[in-house]
Amino acid sequence: MKHIYTGKTKDVYELNDGNYLLQFKDDVTGVDGVFDPGANSVGLTIEGAGRSGLKLTKYFFEVLKEKGIPTHYVDADIEKATMTVKPAEVFGKGLEVICRYRAVGSFLRRYGLYAEEGQPLDAFVEVTIKDDERQDPPISEDALDMLGILSKDEYKVLKDLTQQISNVVKEELAKKGIELYDIKLEFGRTGTGRQIVLIDEISGGNMRAYKDGKYIEPLELEKLFL
Amino acid sequence: MKHIYTGKTKDVYELNDGNYLLQFKDDVTGVDGVFDPGANSVGLTIEGAGRSGLKLTKYFFEVLKEKGIPTHYVDADIEKATMTVKPAEVFGKGLEVICRYRAVGSFLRRYGLYAEEGQPLDAFVEVTIKDDERQDPPISEDALDMLGILSKDEYKVLKDLTQQISNVVKEELAKKGIELYDIKLEFGRTGTGRQIVLIDEISGGNMRAYKDGKYIEPLELEKLFL
Repeated sequence: MKHIYTGKTKDVYELNDGNYLLQFKDDVTGVDGVFDPGANSVGLTIEGAGRSGLKLTKYFFEVLKEKGIPTHYVDADIEKATMTVKPAEVFGKGLEVICRYRAVGSFLRRYGLYAEEGQPLDAFVEVTIKDDERQDPPISEDALDMLGILSKDEYKVLKDLTQQISNVVKEELAKKGIELYDIKLEFGRTGTGRQIVLIDEISGGNMRAYKDGKYIEPLELEKLFL
Repeated sequence: MKHIYTGKTKDVYELNDGNYLLQFKDDVTGVDGVFDPGANSVGLTIEGAGRSGLKLTKYFFEVLKEKGIPTHYVDADIEKATMTVKPAEVFGKGLEVICRYRAVGSFLRRYGLYAEEGQPLDAFVEVTIKDDERQDPPISEDALDMLGILSKDEYKVLKDLTQQISNVVKEELAKKGIELYDIKLEFGRTGTGRQIVLIDEISGGNMRAYKDGKYIEPLELEKLFL
């Protein structure tokens, strides 16, 4: 097993069979010691944060598997806080794909002239570039194509998968009376067919979830939901 | 003739026949007394600026008319610095449509991870919201549709017209050895058919133009080109 990458919240190892092992860490992103999933640097360490994120990720990736939606997931070991995944290559230097059901956060900061806080949105999809230095700017389908990051055909697949996956998460949360406001996903290409699959994780840190109109903190979500 | 609006660089009057009169002013946008077409407030007054902008606008709108590309233009009086136009309603509270031939300005600030300064772009179109308070954010086709600002069919027309018009301006400038890097256009709906037409102006303040690798100041462009 070869250590190949140290991320903010995960370490990555290459396995002998060609798969990868993600080691979920207790480090979480944040600013001034406060957990903020949108922050770009590690702000603090919370005991059990890695396992908590993995539990939700395992749950959602297994639901997606049952539904035949492609992901990089192979299996997970909660005790060791590790997840085995198929190799996948990200688009360009990494993209994030957001699906929105209510107007909050950066959507509202940008489009507040036309949208009210909390206004319902119909599974609105947007893509942002992972670029800490430039504050993860949003990018259009045309720009992704022109800059050679993602073809137009791939964009269609990406958007469709994002809405399918987000709707699954939304329905699962709704079973426990939790409402999904928005969710941030990552995708990659895998295998010789360069199939587009969901990668990374699905946990409290990837989404804004509310119960009875009150925001659920990322680490609370796992306790409330599972 | 009824005065109906005072803009940063133009006053608008309604004529008895239902058309509108745009009075081009010598006020230009800028910061700290320096002319900056991208600025959101009037920074200074330059004698002849209104007439200079109108001369270029008249030239380009008449070329577009010859080519059958729809605009709101009726005629212009350079001496009085006025332009007569058909009534048109803007999309939402106003949009700007940018066409880019080289990666500079806000494109580069956003996508510098994937683009080099001055890199050629293939008539790349993007739309921004006119919203001084939120720094004129870019907005996608999907968001325009979802927020009821522009339908998907209208977006197609808008993008196509933007590329046609920008290519005309690019070719006209090229005849004088001037290279168009990018241009910012405005559109509106006119008549009972709500036809999409080019509105506002086409002058040095709407574009970045270069000669022999050197940026041409907005007011210099008219002298150099006409």
